[in-house]
Amino acid sequence: MALQKESTVIGFIGLGVMGKSMASHLLKHGYRLRVFTRTKEKAEELLQLGAVWKETVAELAREADVILTMVGYPKDVESIYLDHDGILANAKPGTYVIDMTTSTPALAEKIYQAALAKGIHALDAPVSGGDIGAKEARLTIMVGGDEEVFQTVKPILEIMGKNIILQGKAGAGQHTKMCNQIAIASNMLGVCEAINYARNAGLDPATVLKSIEAGAAGSWSLSNLAPRMIAHNYEPGFYIKHFIKDMGIALDAAKNMGIMAPGLELALSLYQEMEKMGEDNSGTQALIKWYSNK
Amino acid sequence: MALQKESTVIGFIGLGVMGKSMASHLLKHGYRLRVFTRTKEKAEELLQLGAVWKETVAELAREADVILTMVGYPKDVESIYLDHDGILANAKPGTYVIDMTTSTPALAEKIYQAALAKGIHALDAPVSGGDIGAKEARLTIMVGGDEEVFQTVKPILEIMGKNIILQGKAGAGQHTKMCNQIAIASNMLGVCEAINYARNAGLDPATVLKSIEAGAAGSWSLSNLAPRMIAHNYEPGFYIKHFIKDMGIALDAAKNMGIMAPGLELALSLYQEMEKMGEDNSGTQALIKWYSNK
Repeated sequence: MALQKESTVIGFIGLGVMGKSMASHLLKHGYRLRVFTRTKEKAEELLQLGAVWKETVAELAREADVILTMVGYPKDVESIYLDHDGILANAKPGTYVIDMTTSTPALAEKIYQAALAKGIHALDAPVSGGDIGAKEARLTIMVGGDEEVFQTVKPILEIMGKNIILQGKAGAGQHTKMCNQIAIASNMLGVCEAINYARNAGLDPATVLKSIEAGAAGSWSLSNLAPRMIAHNYEPGFYIKHFIKDMGIALDAAKNMGIMAPGLELALSLYQEMEKMGEDNSGTQALIKWYSNK
Repeated sequence: MALQKESTVIGFIGLGVMGKSMASHLLKHGYRLRVFTRTKEKAEELLQLGAVWKETVAELAREADVILTMVGYPKDVESIYLDHDGILANAKPGTYVIDMTTSTPALAEKIYQAALAKGIHALDAPVSGGDIGAKEARLTIMVGGDEEVFQTVKPILEIMGKNIILQGKAGAGQHTKMCNQIAIASNMLGVCEAINYARNAGLDPATVLKSIEAGAAGSWSLSNLAPRMIAHNYEPGFYIKHFIKDMGIALDAAKNMGIMAPGLELALSLYQEMEKMGEDNSGTQALIKWYSNK
């Protein structure tokens, strides 16, 4: 079944920095939008662009043909989807529900099953690319669920992202996002340790970067976050508190699968120390402070 | 002082995979080349191209205006430079000596001082880029030593590399190479853990790479080594035994500076377990076996 833009009502729940940008693209592309978020002021801009405010999740769920959620933590996802006044209890059969929050693979599977029982089509579709990716509609979207459902909603996802891949059945989107965070986690240690070593060896870290970033040591984090470390710029591109959440999910999932992830474990433990130092609202590059404070 | 190509005799010691490619570029650019390496057969190809074989390091050192060394371990560097029948005891004052082996920063400083006392100009100039970079004359060369000496020999280094940067005084080239290896070390954990997670979560790791390699999780190792892990291809691009050597140097240097490097320490310990499993001659990507064997 193809979704007609003119007749499709999209509900969007969660209008933080990411959600707001994503929802605004949908509006600009002519979709009818119903929105709900915890703090109504965050919706103001979208309401002026033509989005319609809904007072509750249930009300939004009853009216929407497609529901996108982009909230904070797995507990928020669980409550929004599974509570008696939540999405699944109130959406019509045939509704498409897409959780774009980074959440647990197990919860994604649970929502998929609960949705299935009500004739609702669920996908997990977490993203990477950050606030800039959301603003520029260049997000990477990692999807888990049924192929047919994926194909039906893909035109909507394409309004928000560029690299949109169905990775497997329900939960596979979240699992893929965990692979992404796992790769980042250990690499952050390497980037910090290289910069900290350079400083202590009396090198100029920026000049060191010129020698090493284009070769086998090269990475997105080395090119994008090391310069911020060098400049003592700890503004959040990605919050430490959110990274801790994601690494916790990944580590739990790894333990449930019975696999080892000592690099991830180490990275998580250092970031937890950072959190205790009051750095939870700093950007992930602030990990360099763990090293320079030792 | 500028070195005239026609009258400059270059001595090259150490004709392994890297050294052979590097020396051949010098020959092709018209330099007169004297060579020595432990196993004479390794020099055959170069001798046919016009290089002249020398029976001892001392003999080579007496005849050369510029001496390049590319050997295995710091102990080899130390013996070739500092033994009574080594380079410094036999080279003329005014000779330029450039160690391109990845070795210890402390030894580089020691050689620099010993050379200085004899009027010999020493640089440490380790490389990155591997056998392919050496073959294609696209090595990154990280240099430590005096600016004037660097400028004098730079035309020779430019025959072998592309990204050639003076990083500071004697030892700074080695320190920079350590930064490079430190950044790689922890990242290898992340790449392995992401691929191992993907496999165990029932994902297709190659499809996962399509979602994650272009974003914040992206790195040279993820794009170049993860596909080899997925294909169970453990052929050495870079040997585990050499990586262990480098990480050991880096960790010692870090300890001497009194700085922490828990990611490096963890990576080294896993690679040492790999070595015990008989994987010292495998490529660094074989670390994935540590995870899949658990």
